Amino acid sequence: MIKITIIGSGNVAQHLIKAFTKSEQIEIVQVFSRKKESVLNLVNADRIVTEFANLHESDLYIISVSDDAISEVSEQLPFKNQLVVHTSGTTSIDVLDSKNRKGVFYPLQTFSKAKSVDFSIIPICLETENPGDYTILDTIAKSISEAVFSISSEQRKSLHVSAVFVNNFTNHLYQIGQEICENNQVPFDILKPLILETADKIKFLSPADAQTGPAKRHDSTTIEAHLNYLTDENQRNIYKLLTQSIQHNDKTL
Amino acid sequence: MIKITIIGSGNVAQHLIKAFTKSEQIEIVQVFSRKKESVLNLVNADRIVTEFANLHESDLYIISVSDDAISEVSEQLPFKNQLVVHTSGTTSIDVLDSKNRKGVFYPLQTFSKAKSVDFSIIPICLETENPGDYTILDTIAKSISEAVFSISSEQRKSLHVSAVFVNNFTNHLYQIGQEICENNQVPFDILKPLILETADKIKFLSPADAQTGPAKRHDSTTIEAHLNYLTDENQRNIYKLLTQSIQHNDKTL
Repeated sequence: MIKITIIGSGNVAQHLIKAFTKSEQIEIVQVFSRKKESVLNLVNADRIVTEFANLHESDLYIISVSDDAISEVSEQLPFKNQLVVHTSGTTSIDVLDSKNRKGVFYPLQTFSKAKSVDFSIIPICLETENPGDYTILDTIAKSISEAVFSISSEQRKSLHVSAVFVNNFTNHLYQIGQEICENNQVPFDILKPLILETADKIKFLSPADAQTGPAKRHDSTTIEAHLNYLTDENQRNIYKLLTQSIQHNDKTL
Repeated sequence: MIKITIIGSGNVAQHLIKAFTKSEQIEIVQVFSRKKESVLNLVNADRIVTEFANLHESDLYIISVSDDAISEVSEQLPFKNQLVVHTSGTTSIDVLDSKNRKGVFYPLQTFSKAKSVDFSIIPICLETENPGDYTILDTIAKSISEAVFSISSEQRKSLHVSAVFVNNFTNHLYQIGQEICENNQVPFDILKPLILETADKIKFLSPADAQTGPAKRHDSTTIEAHLNYLTDENQRNIYKLLTQSIQHNDKTL
Protein backbone atom coordinates (compact mmCIF):
# COMPACT_ATOMS: atom_id res chain seq x y z
CA MET A 1 0.00 0.00 0.00
CA ILE A 2 1.21 3.46 -0.87
CA LYS A 3 0.77 5.84 2.04
CA ILE A 4 -0.77 9.25 1.34
CA THR A 5 -1.41 12.24 3.56
CA ILE A 6 -3.91 14.88 2.51
CA ILE A 7 -3.38 18.39 3.83
CA GLY A 8 -6.54 20.42 3.48
CA SER A 9 -10.28 19.83 3.62
CA GLY A 10 -11.76 21.91 0.79
CA ASN A 11 -13.58 20.77 -2.31
CA VAL A 12 -10.62 19.21 -4.13
CA ALA A 13 -9.26 17.62 -0.93
CA GLN A 14 -12.62 16.01 -0.21
CA HIS A 15 -12.98 14.61 -3.73
CA LEU A 16 -9.41 13.26 -3.55
CA ILE A 17 -10.10 11.60 -0.20
CA LYS A 18 -13.16 9.90 -1.68
CA ALA A 19 -11.26 8.73 -4.77
CA PHE A 20 -8.23 7.40 -2.82
CA THR A 21 -10.47 5.66 -0.30
CA LYS A 22 -11.84 3.55 -3.16
CA SER A 23 -8.37 2.63 -4.46
CA GLU A 24 -6.93 -0.67 -3.22
CA GLN A 25 -3.35 0.47 -3.76
CA ILE A 26 -3.61 3.54 -1.56
CA GLU A 27 -3.88 4.07 2.18
CA ILE A 28 -4.80 7.51 3.45
CA VAL A 29 -2.61 7.72 6.54
CA GLN A 30 -3.85 11.07 7.76
CA VAL A 31 -5.86 14.10 6.77
CA PHE A 32 -4.76 17.47 8.11
CA SER A 33 -7.71 19.77 8.67
CA ARG A 34 -7.98 22.81 10.91
CA LYS A 35 -11.70 22.08 11.10
CA LYS A 36 -11.96 18.44 12.07
CA GLU A 37 -15.70 18.28 11.36
CA SER A 38 -15.36 19.06 7.64
CA VAL A 39 -13.82 15.65 6.88
CA LEU A 40 -15.35 13.56 9.70
CA ASN A 41 -17.77 11.94 7.25
CA LEU A 42 -14.90 10.88 4.97
CA VAL A 43 -12.19 9.55 7.30
CA ASN A 44 -11.92 8.06 10.77
CA ALA A 45 -11.54 10.66 13.51
CA ASP A 46 -8.23 9.18 14.69
CA ARG A 47 -6.69 9.87 11.30
CA ILE A 48 -7.58 13.57 11.30
CA VAL A 49 -4.86 15.88 12.63
CA THR A 50 -5.12 19.57 13.37
CA GLU A 51 -1.43 20.22 14.14
CA PHE A 52 1.45 19.83 11.69
CA ALA A 53 3.56 18.36 14.50
CA ASN A 54 1.28 15.33 14.56
CA LEU A 55 1.86 14.32 10.94
CA HIS A 56 3.19 10.77 10.52
CA GLU A 57 5.49 9.44 7.86
CA SER A 58 3.95 9.02 4.43
CA ASP A 59 5.00 8.32 0.82
CA LEU A 60 3.27 11.46 -0.43
CA TYR A 61 1.92 14.63 1.13
CA ILE A 62 -0.76 16.32 -0.98
CA ILE A 63 -1.30 19.97 -0.11
CA SER A 64 -4.80 20.86 -1.27
CA VAL A 65 -5.43 24.33 0.14
CA SER A 66 -6.19 27.72 -1.42
CA ASP A 67 -3.49 28.89 -3.84
CA ASP A 68 -2.13 31.63 -1.64
CA ALA A 69 -1.75 29.32 1.38
CA ILE A 70 0.33 26.64 -0.41
CA SER A 71 3.68 28.28 0.20
CA GLU A 72 3.12 28.87 3.90
CA VAL A 73 1.73 25.38 4.50
CA SER A 74 4.75 23.83 2.75
CA GLU A 75 7.08 25.83 5.01
CA GLN A 76 5.31 24.63 8.13
CA LEU A 77 5.74 20.94 7.38
CA PRO A 78 7.97 19.54 10.18
CA PHE A 79 10.10 17.23 8.00
CA LYS A 80 12.58 17.21 5.11
CA ASN A 81 13.26 15.26 1.89
CA GLN A 82 9.71 13.97 1.59
CA LEU A 83 7.61 14.09 -1.59
CA VAL A 84 5.25 17.08 -1.27
CA VAL A 85 2.86 18.17 -4.03
CA HIS A 86 0.16 20.77 -4.45
CA THR A 87 -3.06 20.41 -6.49
CA SER A 88 -3.33 23.87 -8.01
CA GLY A 89 -3.76 24.68 -11.68
CA THR A 90 -2.39 28.18 -11.38
CA THR A 91 0.49 27.80 -8.98
CA SER A 92 4.07 27.05 -10.01
CA ILE A 93 5.89 24.06 -8.53
CA ASP A 94 8.41 26.62 -7.20
CA VAL A 95 6.17 27.99 -4.46
CA LEU A 96 6.68 24.77 -2.49
CA ASP A 97 9.40 24.94 0.18
CA SER A 98 12.69 23.48 -1.05
CA LYS A 99 13.30 21.43 2.08
CA ASN A 100 11.10 18.71 0.55
CA ARG A 101 10.95 17.06 -2.91
CA LYS A 102 8.47 19.09 -4.90
CA GLY A 103 5.72 18.05 -7.25
CA VAL A 104 2.32 18.93 -8.66
CA PHE A 105 -0.78 16.72 -8.70
CA TYR A 106 -3.43 18.75 -10.53
CA PRO A 107 -6.79 17.10 -11.25
CA LEU A 108 -8.32 19.19 -14.02
CA GLN A 109 -12.01 19.21 -13.23
CA THR A 110 -14.66 21.42 -11.72
CA PHE A 111 -15.61 20.09 -8.31
CA SER A 112 -18.84 20.92 -6.54
CA LYS A 113 -19.52 19.73 -3.05
CA ALA A 114 -23.07 18.93 -4.13
CA LYS A 115 -22.22 16.64 -7.05
CA SER A 116 -20.09 13.52 -7.08
CA VAL A 117 -17.74 12.92 -10.01
CA ASP A 118 -16.32 9.87 -11.74
CA PHE A 119 -12.64 10.35 -10.93
CA SER A 120 -11.54 7.68 -13.41
CA ILE A 121 -12.11 10.01 -16.37
CA ILE A 122 -10.62 13.12 -14.75
CA PRO A 123 -7.29 14.13 -16.29
CA ILE A 124 -4.53 14.44 -13.69
CA CYS A 125 -1.58 16.63 -14.65
CA LEU A 126 1.68 15.66 -12.97
CA GLU A 127 5.01 17.39 -12.52
CA THR A 128 7.98 16.55 -10.31
CA GLU A 129 11.16 18.41 -9.57
CA ASN A 130 13.18 15.17 -9.54
CA PRO A 131 12.57 12.83 -12.47
CA GLY A 132 12.94 9.92 -10.02
CA ASP A 133 9.79 11.01 -8.18
CA TYR A 134 7.65 10.93 -11.30
CA THR A 135 7.07 7.16 -11.19
CA ILE A 136 5.51 7.12 -7.73
CA LEU A 137 3.29 10.09 -8.57
CA ASP A 138 2.28 8.41 -11.83
CA THR A 139 1.40 5.17 -9.98
CA ILE A 140 -0.71 7.07 -7.46
CA ALA A 141 -2.51 9.10 -10.13
CA LYS A 142 -3.22 5.99 -12.20
CA SER A 143 -4.73 4.31 -9.14
CA ILE A 144 -7.66 6.75 -9.39
CA SER A 145 -7.67 8.00 -13.01
CA GLU A 146 -7.24 6.61 -16.51
CA ALA A 147 -6.07 9.98 -17.86
CA VAL A 148 -2.69 10.93 -16.44
CA PHE A 149 -0.47 13.47 -18.19
CA SER A 150 3.01 14.88 -17.63
CA ILE A 151 2.52 18.66 -17.75
CA SER A 152 5.13 21.31 -16.97
CA SER A 153 4.33 24.38 -14.86
CA GLU A 154 4.41 26.46 -18.05
CA GLN A 155 1.99 24.15 -19.85
CA ARG A 156 -0.22 24.06 -16.76
CA LYS A 157 -0.60 27.83 -16.97
CA SER A 158 -2.01 27.55 -20.48
CA LEU A 159 -4.32 24.73 -19.39
CA HIS A 160 -5.66 26.79 -16.54
CA VAL A 161 -6.32 29.83 -18.72
CA SER A 162 -8.06 27.56 -21.25
CA ALA A 163 -10.08 26.02 -18.44
CA VAL A 164 -11.32 29.48 -17.43
CA PHE A 165 -12.65 29.96 -20.97
CA VAL A 166 -14.27 26.54 -21.41
CA ASN A 167 -15.56 26.19 -17.86
CA ASN A 168 -15.99 29.48 -15.95
CA PHE A 169 -16.90 31.64 -18.92
CA THR A 170 -19.06 28.96 -20.52
CA ASN A 171 -21.00 28.56 -17.29
CA HIS A 172 -21.50 32.31 -17.21
CA LEU A 173 -22.98 32.18 -20.72
CA TYR A 174 -25.40 29.55 -19.40
CA GLN A 175 -26.36 32.01 -16.70
CA ILE A 176 -27.02 34.75 -19.24
CA GLY A 177 -29.12 32.29 -21.25
CA GLN A 178 -31.12 31.52 -18.13
CA GLU A 179 -31.65 35.21 -17.37
CA ILE A 180 -32.92 35.93 -20.88
CA CYS A 181 -35.31 32.97 -20.64
CA GLU A 182 -36.62 33.89 -17.23
CA ASN A 183 -37.17 37.51 -18.20
CA ASN A 184 -39.45 36.18 -20.93
CA GLN A 185 -41.28 33.50 -18.94
CA VAL A 186 -39.61 30.70 -20.89
CA PRO A 187 -38.44 27.65 -18.91
CA PHE A 188 -34.62 27.39 -19.02
CA ASP A 189 -35.07 23.60 -19.15
CA ILE A 190 -35.83 23.93 -22.87
CA LEU A 191 -32.19 24.89 -23.42
CA LYS A 192 -30.58 22.10 -21.40
CA PRO A 193 -30.52 19.47 -24.18
CA LEU A 194 -28.89 22.08 -26.44
CA ILE A 195 -26.25 22.83 -23.81
CA LEU A 196 -25.46 19.12 -23.39
CA GLU A 197 -25.32 18.51 -27.14
CA THR A 198 -23.01 21.51 -27.64
CA ALA A 199 -20.56 20.00 -25.18
CA ASP A 200 -21.00 16.45 -26.46
CA LYS A 201 -20.24 17.49 -30.03
CA ILE A 202 -16.61 18.30 -29.28
CA LYS A 203 -15.98 14.61 -28.66
CA PHE A 204 -16.48 14.10 -32.39
CA LEU A 205 -15.95 17.50 -34.02
CA SER A 206 -13.36 20.23 -33.52
CA PRO A 207 -14.94 23.42 -32.14
CA ALA A 208 -14.11 25.14 -35.43
CA ASP A 209 -16.05 22.50 -37.38
CA ALA A 210 -18.91 22.53 -34.87
CA GLN A 211 -19.42 26.31 -35.04
CA THR A 212 -22.89 27.33 -36.24
CA GLY A 213 -25.15 30.35 -35.77
CA PRO A 214 -25.75 33.84 -37.11
CA ALA A 215 -22.18 35.05 -36.47
CA LYS A 216 -20.67 32.13 -38.36
CA ARG A 217 -23.18 32.56 -41.22
CA HIS A 218 -22.48 36.33 -41.25
CA ASP A 219 -26.27 36.69 -40.99
CA SER A 220 -26.37 40.39 -40.21
CA THR A 221 -30.18 40.56 -40.19
CA THR A 222 -30.41 38.10 -37.29
CA ILE A 223 -27.45 39.67 -35.48
CA GLU A 224 -29.15 43.08 -35.69
CA ALA A 225 -32.46 41.62 -34.52
CA HIS A 226 -30.74 40.00 -31.52
CA LEU A 227 -28.92 43.21 -30.60
CA ASN A 228 -32.18 45.13 -30.80
CA TYR A 229 -33.85 42.50 -28.66
CA LEU A 230 -31.25 42.62 -25.88
CA THR A 231 -31.85 45.51 -23.50
CA ASP A 232 -29.09 44.69 -21.00
CA GLU A 233 -25.98 46.67 -21.96
CA ASN A 234 -23.62 44.03 -20.59
CA GLN A 235 -25.35 41.24 -22.54
CA ARG A 236 -25.22 43.37 -25.71
CA ASN A 237 -21.48 43.96 -25.27
CA ILE A 238 -20.80 40.25 -24.82
CA TYR A 239 -22.97 39.45 -27.84
CA LYS A 240 -21.07 41.95 -29.98
CA LEU A 241 -17.59 40.94 -28.87
CA LEU A 242 -18.15 37.19 -29.29
CA THR A 243 -19.85 37.70 -32.67
CA GLN A 244 -16.85 39.75 -33.84
CA SER A 245 -14.50 37.11 -32.49
CA ILE A 246 -16.26 34.28 -34.36
CA GLN A 247 -16.17 36.31 -37.59
CA HIS A 248 -12.55 37.34 -37.04
CA ASN A 249 -11.60 33.68 -36.64
CA ASP A 250 -13.34 32.98 -39.91
CA LYS A 251 -11.21 35.46 -41.79
CA THR A 252 -7.94 34.25 -40.33
CA LEU A 253 -8.60 30.63 -41.32
CA MET B 1 -51.54 7.74 -40.03
CA ILE B 2 -50.97 11.48 -40.03
CA LYS B 3 -49.68 12.68 -43.40
CA ILE B 4 -46.72 15.06 -43.41
CA THR B 5 -44.94 16.84 -46.23
CA ILE B 6 -41.45 18.21 -45.70
CA ILE B 7 -40.41 21.17 -47.82
CA GLY B 8 -36.63 21.55 -47.81
CA SER B 9 -33.60 19.28 -47.64
CA GLY B 10 -31.14 21.04 -45.29
CA ASN B 11 -29.82 19.88 -41.95
CA VAL B 12 -33.04 20.32 -39.96
CA ALA B 13 -35.19 18.87 -42.75
CA GLN B 14 -33.00 15.77 -42.94
CA HIS B 15 -33.09 15.19 -39.17
CA LEU B 16 -36.88 15.63 -39.21
CA ILE B 17 -37.26 13.14 -42.06
CA LYS B 18 -35.21 10.60 -40.09
CA ALA B 19 -37.23 11.16 -36.92
CA PHE B 20 -40.66 10.98 -38.63
CA THR B 21 -39.64 7.88 -40.60
CA LYS B 22 -39.20 6.06 -37.28
CA SER B 23 -42.60 7.17 -35.96
CA GLU B 24 -45.46 4.71 -36.46
CA GLN B 25 -48.08 7.46 -36.34
CA ILE B 26 -46.60 9.49 -39.18
CA GLU B 27 -46.38 8.99 -42.92
CA ILE B 28 -44.08 11.24 -44.90
CA VAL B 29 -46.13 11.74 -48.04
CA GLN B 30 -43.60 13.78 -49.96
CA VAL B 31 -40.36 15.71 -49.59
CA PHE B 32 -39.89 18.80 -51.70
CA SER B 33 -36.25 19.29 -52.63
CA ARG B 34 -34.78 21.27 -55.52
CA LYS B 35 -31.81 18.89 -55.37
CA LYS B 36 -33.32 15.42 -55.47
CA GLU B 37 -30.02 13.72 -54.57
CA SER B 38 -29.71 15.38 -51.15
CA VAL B 39 -32.61 13.33 -49.71
CA LEU B 40 -32.38 10.21 -51.90
CA ASN B 41 -30.80 8.24 -49.05
CA LEU B 42 -33.68 9.16 -46.71
CA VAL B 43 -36.85 8.76 -48.77
CA ASN B 44 -38.01 6.81 -51.83
CA ALA B 45 -37.35 8.61 -55.11
CA ASP B 46 -41.03 8.60 -56.08
CA ARG B 47 -41.84 10.67 -52.99
CA ILE B 48 -39.40 13.43 -53.80
CA VAL B 49 -40.83 16.36 -55.74
CA THR B 50 -38.98 19.27 -57.28
CA GLU B 51 -42.01 21.33 -58.35
CA PHE B 52 -44.58 22.87 -56.00
CA ALA B 53 -47.31 21.95 -58.51
CA ASN B 54 -46.68 18.26 -57.78
CA LEU B 55 -47.38 18.47 -54.04
CA HIS B 56 -50.17 16.12 -52.88
CA GLU B 57 -52.63 16.62 -50.07
CA SER B 58 -51.21 16.32 -46.57
CA ASP B 59 -52.21 17.01 -42.96
CA LEU B 60 -49.18 19.20 -42.38
CA TYR B 61 -46.64 20.97 -44.56
CA ILE B 62 -43.34 21.66 -42.78
CA ILE B 63 -41.25 24.37 -44.45
CA SER B 64 -37.67 23.78 -43.38
CA VAL B 65 -35.62 26.16 -45.50
CA SER B 66 -33.29 29.08 -44.74
CA ASP B 67 -34.99 31.85 -42.77
CA ASP B 68 -35.08 34.36 -45.60
CA ALA B 69 -36.68 31.87 -48.01
CA ILE B 70 -39.63 30.91 -45.76
CA SER B 71 -41.90 33.74 -46.86
CA GLU B 72 -41.40 33.15 -50.58
CA VAL B 73 -41.79 29.38 -50.29
CA SER B 74 -45.04 29.82 -48.36
CA GLU B 75 -46.36 32.09 -51.12
CA GLN B 76 -45.56 29.57 -53.81
CA LEU B 77 -47.58 26.76 -52.26
CA PRO B 78 -50.37 25.95 -54.75
CA PHE B 79 -53.16 25.42 -52.20
CA LYS B 80 -55.17 27.19 -49.48
CA ASN B 81 -56.46 26.53 -45.95
CA GLN B 82 -53.89 23.85 -45.20
CA LEU B 83 -51.75 23.71 -42.06
CA VAL B 84 -48.31 25.13 -42.94
CA VAL B 85 -45.50 25.61 -40.40
CA HIS B 86 -41.88 26.68 -40.48
CA THR B 87 -39.06 25.34 -38.28
CA SER B 88 -37.15 28.54 -37.59
CA GLY B 89 -36.15 29.86 -34.19
CA THR B 90 -35.77 33.44 -35.35
CA THR B 91 -38.67 33.90 -37.71
CA SER B 92 -42.12 35.12 -36.70
CA ILE B 93 -45.19 33.06 -37.51
CA ASP B 94 -46.35 36.11 -39.50
CA VAL B 95 -43.92 35.65 -42.40
CA LEU B 96 -45.97 32.67 -43.58
CA ASP B 97 -48.48 33.49 -46.33
CA SER B 98 -51.99 34.00 -44.94
CA LYS B 99 -53.69 31.82 -47.54
CA ASN B 100 -52.87 28.82 -45.33
CA ARG B 101 -53.29 28.09 -41.58
CA LYS B 102 -50.01 29.15 -40.00
CA GLY B 103 -47.88 27.52 -37.36
CA VAL B 104 -44.36 27.02 -36.05
CA PHE B 105 -42.62 23.71 -35.37
CA TYR B 106 -39.22 24.65 -33.96
CA PRO B 107 -36.92 21.85 -32.73
CA LEU B 108 -34.44 23.57 -30.45
CA GLN B 109 -31.20 21.73 -31.04
CA THR B 110 -27.92 22.11 -32.91
CA PHE B 111 -27.93 19.74 -35.86
CA SER B 112 -24.77 18.58 -37.59
CA LYS B 113 -24.94 16.43 -40.71
CA ALA B 114 -22.07 14.39 -39.29
CA LYS B 115 -23.67 13.48 -35.97
CA SER B 116 -27.00 11.77 -35.32
CA VAL B 117 -29.18 13.00 -32.48
CA ASP B 118 -31.73 11.40 -30.17
CA PHE B 119 -34.83 13.30 -31.24
CA SER B 120 -36.87 12.06 -28.28
CA ILE B 121 -35.10 14.47 -25.91
CA ILE B 122 -35.11 17.47 -28.26
CA PRO B 123 -37.51 20.20 -27.14
CA ILE B 124 -39.99 21.14 -29.84
CA CYS B 125 -41.56 24.59 -29.56
CA LEU B 126 -45.00 24.88 -31.11
CA GLU B 127 -47.19 27.79 -32.09
CA THR B 128 -50.37 27.94 -34.16
CA GLU B 129 -52.39 30.83 -35.45
CA ASN B 130 -55.66 28.97 -34.81
CA PRO B 131 -56.01 27.33 -31.40
CA GLY B 132 -57.80 24.46 -33.15
CA ASP B 133 -54.64 23.52 -35.03
CA TYR B 134 -52.56 23.16 -31.90
CA THR B 135 -53.78 19.64 -31.12
CA ILE B 136 -52.65 18.12 -34.41
CA LEU B 137 -49.27 19.85 -34.18
CA ASP B 138 -48.92 18.66 -30.59
CA THR B 139 -49.74 15.06 -31.58
CA ILE B 140 -47.17 15.17 -34.38
CA ALA B 141 -44.46 16.69 -32.18
CA LYS B 142 -45.12 14.14 -29.43
CA SER B 143 -44.75 11.32 -31.95
CA ILE B 144 -41.02 12.13 -32.14
CA SER B 145 -40.20 14.03 -28.91
CA GLU B 146 -40.96 13.81 -25.22
CA ALA B 147 -40.37 17.55 -24.72
CA VAL B 148 -43.06 19.59 -26.44
CA PHE B 149 -43.75 23.20 -25.44
CA SER B 150 -46.24 25.87 -26.45
CA ILE B 151 -44.07 28.92 -27.20
CA SER B 152 -45.22 32.21 -28.70
CA SER B 153 -43.25 34.01 -31.41
CA GLU B 154 -42.17 36.54 -28.81
CA GLN B 155 -40.95 33.84 -26.42
CA ARG B 156 -39.23 32.07 -29.30
CA LYS B 157 -37.15 35.20 -29.94
CA SER B 158 -35.82 35.10 -26.40
CA LEU B 159 -35.11 31.38 -26.70
CA HIS B 160 -33.16 31.89 -29.88
CA VAL B 161 -31.06 34.70 -28.42
CA SER B 162 -30.39 32.52 -25.35
CA ALA B 163 -29.46 29.64 -27.64
CA VAL B 164 -26.85 31.82 -29.34
CA PHE B 165 -25.24 32.43 -25.93
CA VAL B 166 -25.34 28.85 -24.64
CA ASN B 167 -24.55 27.16 -27.96
CA ASN B 168 -22.77 29.37 -30.53
CA PHE B 169 -20.80 31.50 -28.07
CA THR B 170 -20.02 28.56 -25.80
CA ASN B 171 -18.66 26.61 -28.73
CA HIS B 172 -16.52 29.59 -29.64
CA LEU B 173 -15.06 29.60 -26.11
CA TYR B 174 -14.18 25.93 -26.66
CA GLN B 175 -12.35 27.00 -29.80
CA ILE B 176 -10.37 29.65 -27.89
CA GLY B 177 -9.50 27.03 -25.27
CA GLN B 178 -8.26 24.75 -28.01
CA GLU B 179 -6.14 27.51 -29.55
CA ILE B 180 -4.50 28.34 -26.22
CA CYS B 181 -3.74 24.65 -25.64
CA GLU B 182 -2.33 24.07 -29.09
CA ASN B 183 -0.14 27.17 -28.93
CA ASN B 184 1.43 25.60 -25.83
CA GLN B 185 1.73 22.01 -27.04
CA VAL B 186 -0.93 20.80 -24.63
CA PRO B 187 -3.47 18.27 -25.95
CA PHE B 188 -6.98 19.79 -26.02
CA ASP B 189 -8.29 16.34 -25.03
CA ILE B 190 -7.28 17.13 -21.43
CA LEU B 191 -10.05 19.74 -21.33
CA LYS B 192 -12.86 17.61 -22.76
CA PRO B 193 -13.98 16.00 -19.47
CA LEU B 194 -14.12 19.50 -17.94
CA ILE B 195 -16.26 20.74 -20.83
CA LEU B 196 -18.66 17.82 -20.45
CA GLU B 197 -18.88 18.20 -16.67
CA THR B 198 -19.52 21.95 -16.98
CA ALA B 199 -22.53 21.20 -19.19
CA ASP B 200 -23.68 18.23 -17.12
CA LYS B 201 -23.69 20.27 -13.92
CA ILE B 202 -26.59 22.45 -15.04
CA LYS B 203 -28.87 19.43 -14.86
CA PHE B 204 -28.47 19.61 -11.07
CA LEU B 205 -27.29 23.13 -10.27
CA SER B 206 -28.36 26.54 -11.51
CA PRO B 207 -25.58 28.26 -13.48
CA ALA B 208 -25.35 30.86 -10.70
CA ASP B 209 -24.73 28.14 -8.11
CA ALA B 210 -22.31 26.30 -10.40
CA GLN B 211 -20.12 29.35 -11.04
CA THR B 212 -16.52 28.93 -9.92
CA GLY B 213 -13.15 30.41 -10.93
CA PRO B 214 -10.96 33.44 -10.36
CA ALA B 215 -13.61 35.98 -11.44
CA LYS B 216 -16.19 34.55 -9.05
CA ARG B 217 -13.61 34.43 -6.23
CA HIS B 218 -12.52 38.00 -7.05
CA ASP B 219 -9.00 36.53 -7.18
CA SER B 220 -7.26 39.52 -8.77
CA THR B 221 -3.80 37.92 -8.61
CA THR B 222 -4.87 35.05 -10.87
CA ILE B 223 -6.88 37.33 -13.14
CA GLU B 224 -3.81 39.57 -13.61
CA ALA B 225 -1.59 36.54 -14.24
CA HIS B 226 -4.01 35.25 -16.88
CA LEU B 227 -4.22 38.61 -18.62
CA ASN B 228 -0.44 38.83 -18.66
CA TYR B 229 -0.27 35.34 -20.06
CA LEU B 230 -2.67 35.99 -22.93
CA THR B 231 -0.96 37.68 -25.86
CA ASP B 232 -3.91 37.66 -28.27
CA GLU B 233 -5.73 40.99 -27.97
CA ASN B 234 -9.11 39.48 -28.84
CA GLN B 235 -8.73 36.74 -26.20
CA ARG B 236 -7.71 39.35 -23.62
CA ASN B 237 -10.80 41.45 -24.39
CA ILE B 238 -13.10 38.45 -24.03
CA TYR B 239 -11.37 37.46 -20.78
CA LYS B 240 -11.80 40.98 -19.37
CA LEU B 241 -15.42 41.42 -20.42
CA LEU B 242 -16.60 38.03 -19.14
CA THR B 243 -14.69 38.46 -15.88
CA GLN B 244 -16.36 41.85 -15.35
CA SER B 245 -19.72 40.35 -16.21
CA ILE B 246 -19.34 37.53 -13.66
CA GLN B 247 -18.32 40.03 -10.98
CA HIS B 248 -21.10 42.43 -11.95
CA ASN B 249 -23.65 39.63 -11.57
CA ASP B 250 -22.23 38.96 -8.15
CA LYS B 251 -22.92 42.48 -6.98
CA THR B 252 -26.47 42.58 -8.27
CA LEU B 253 -27.43 39.37 -6.49
